[in-house]
Amino acid sequence: MIAFARMVQYRARTMDLPQLLLSLIVIYGSARLFGELAGRIGQSAVLGELLAGVLVGGSVLSWVEPTQTLTLLGDIGVMLLLFEIGLESDLPTFLKVGRSAAAVAVIGVVMPFALGYGVAVSLNLTSLQAVFIGATLTATSVAVSARTLDDLGRLNSPEGIIILGAAVLDDILGLVILSVVVGFVQTGSVSWLAAGQAAGLAILFLLGAILLGSRYAHWFGSIVNRMQHRGSLIVSAVTFALALGYAGTLVHLAPLIGAFAAGLILARTEHRTHLGESIKPVADVFVPIFFVLVGAAVDLSRLNPFNQQNWTILLLAGALTVVAVFGKLVAGLGAGGKINRWAVGIGMLPRGEVGLIFAGVGLSSAVISTAEYGAILAVVALTTLLSPLLLKRYFKTA
Amino acid sequence: MIAFARMVQYRARTMDLPQLLLSLIVIYGSARLFGELAGRIGQSAVLGELLAGVLVGGSVLSWVEPTQTLTLLGDIGVMLLLFEIGLESDLPTFLKVGRSAAAVAVIGVVMPFALGYGVAVSLNLTSLQAVFIGATLTATSVAVSARTLDDLGRLNSPEGIIILGAAVLDDILGLVILSVVVGFVQTGSVSWLAAGQAAGLAILFLLGAILLGSRYAHWFGSIVNRMQHRGSLIVSAVTFALALGYAGTLVHLAPLIGAFAAGLILARTEHRTHLGESIKPVADVFVPIFFVLVGAAVDLSRLNPFNQQNWTILLLAGALTVVAVFGKLVAGLGAGGKINRWAVGIGMLPRGEVGLIFAGVGLSSAVISTAEYGAILAVVALTTLLSPLLLKRYFKTA
Repeated sequence: MIAFARMVQYRARTMDLPQLLLSLIVIYGSARLFGELAGRIGQSAVLGELLAGVLVGGSVLSWVEPTQTLTLLGDIGVMLLLFEIGLESDLPTFLKVGRSAAAVAVIGVVMPFALGYGVAVSLNLTSLQAVFIGATLTATSVAVSARTLDDLGRLNSPEGIIILGAAVLDDILGLVILSVVVGFVQTGSVSWLAAGQAAGLAILFLLGAILLGSRYAHWFGSIVNRMQHRGSLIVSAVTFALALGYAGTLVHLAPLIGAFAAGLILARTEHRTHLGESIKPVADVFVPIFFVLVGAAVDLSRLNPFNQQNWTILLLAGALTVVAVFGKLVAGLGAGGKINRWAVGIGMLPRGEVGLIFAGVGLSSAVISTAEYGAILAVVALTTLLSPLLLKRYFKTA
Repeated sequence: MIAFARMVQYRARTMDLPQLLLSLIVIYGSARLFGELAGRIGQSAVLGELLAGVLVGGSVLSWVEPTQTLTLLGDIGVMLLLFEIGLESDLPTFLKVGRSAAAVAVIGVVMPFALGYGVAVSLNLTSLQAVFIGATLTATSVAVSARTLDDLGRLNSPEGIIILGAAVLDDILGLVILSVVVGFVQTGSVSWLAAGQAAGLAILFLLGAILLGSRYAHWFGSIVNRMQHRGSLIVSAVTFALALGYAGTLVHLAPLIGAFAAGLILARTEHRTHLGESIKPVADVFVPIFFVLVGAAVDLSRLNPFNQQNWTILLLAGALTVVAVFGKLVAGLGAGGKINRWAVGIGMLPRGEVGLIFAGVGLSSAVISTAEYGAILAVVALTTLLSPLLLKRYFKTA
């Protein structure tokens, strides 16, 4: 899904090696600097990297342009991040909080959709436009949530596990809504059968991959043990992550979900610890590219309140951000057990990939205008920046 | 220089994330398999990776297409390889063999040029064509030589150090010849001043970077030590390598030469050991992409002896390969001291980046035909495959 969102956002632009080197130098330099600064003022590094992206992106300095190669590197980065997180996670613990995660996911999809629809209709948009705008508010960005939890060292907290589980389920629910909405735009009617098929396939794939994978994970170990040349473990593991990510795209799952499943599977092998060590530097090199590019996609000029043309966008963006936040906070309350429910809701705030897909489809099928598209991008940016900011505080007071 | 060579060879082709994932899966899978097989029959892994590339490339299976993104990933890979090799090298040892390396480099450029010129003229090519063809035979490919030595565990042998030093000098000599030949094609006269400037700038840059870098390398250490977030060492080091690689391109050095200098510099910091460990998995993920793509660029159909149209190409390719090998073997004899001189000559065999640049310039300025271009590609392929094959044997009997 990410790849698709990017295709909608950016047309392919070519670059040569010196240009790529310059871009990477700017990305790494700014991500390091702002990541460190964020840490100094008690924030998570990902917030710094996102702000670094805003600074070096088109809004301010225009030093980094989202070319195809950079975008693809970022997409690989976010797959490696989720692979690493899967590797550090424990499958049984996930299954244990399944009910809570499902409640958080479902409420967190239904509430923002309904509220977003309401806001759009009350601002005189058509009901088809309102459906699109509601849909953009539904799914949490797995990437930003997972990275923030990782930065805060809360990945394996009860709240962290529920957030991650719910965010993965969100991706599947997003598939259902996408299939319904796109079907409706194309044929004028809703096909619940197609939507059910989409969800069923995705769930079947995930469950099948994890169950079969866990069962035959020792094969991976014995194959790797037989290899003699350097890099056998890391290259085999990365290949496995990319392969499951690719297989996931065949049932329309985001590639990072498949990579996450690959991590969960390899976590059950003897190589877990050693692999965890060698994947870290690889992820460190790829991951900042993703978050800096997310920041770079923010268009500050659209959010300038001194430009009167922006007022309708700002009003829409403001109202949508409020309901987007409110909807996910309510979802957090759906989590059972003795946990910090506010933290769960806040962890679910970031919107990203899936929302951008809806916005892109809406724009390219001329259902929504560039103004409404701008408002949705603003919601994505605000919720993405807000979550790490608030989560840090709420985990502290918990 | 590599980037430029690639631009000549392949036009930019776009790809989306699933296509990239599939390509990487094929590259890693085939590189692993053939690398392991090569190891089992006592050969170096790089030979397996090159053959894997021939198999999955356009000649046989056509599973991997050299898109812009893959090519750029390979170029980053070869920079990281040379960075790692620089990190494992010892600067004073390099300077100690400077005289031998210079002799090997100069003889190894002059001899193949003169012999290649002679072969071309005796096959009734014009003298301008002969100059181009001679020039393509001059410079050794740093990437293939370094990787082969690394595979064989001979990087820090006396022969290995001379080969690596001479291959780096080759890149500078290649610059001189390129400047002379391109100037001659454009203006009809030879500008030794321009050639001298090109070489002077490149040498000044390399010496300046290494001397200043070694002196202030401890700054790098203290900056990294002050950073708190994960990945600070590896990301800072990779950024430094990319930055020196980029700076090198400003004086027309290949990016991998700058990255090599960065490795030499950081080898003189307290972080050397730790950095050496964390760069390995990163290099493991990037490097195979380069070598598989080199193999994939081989066009076997041009070498089919049963196709009569290929006979003139094959004759030219055969004669050029003989003189290309002979010229570098003679150069190996130029190395002083008590060492295995045959191994030095064999280590210098692989032609690559620089030769392809000459061939590309010759083709695009219509000095040479596609037939001659094909013959040069064949020489590059044969010398690149021959070197790891022979080097293994010669180091064993040494």
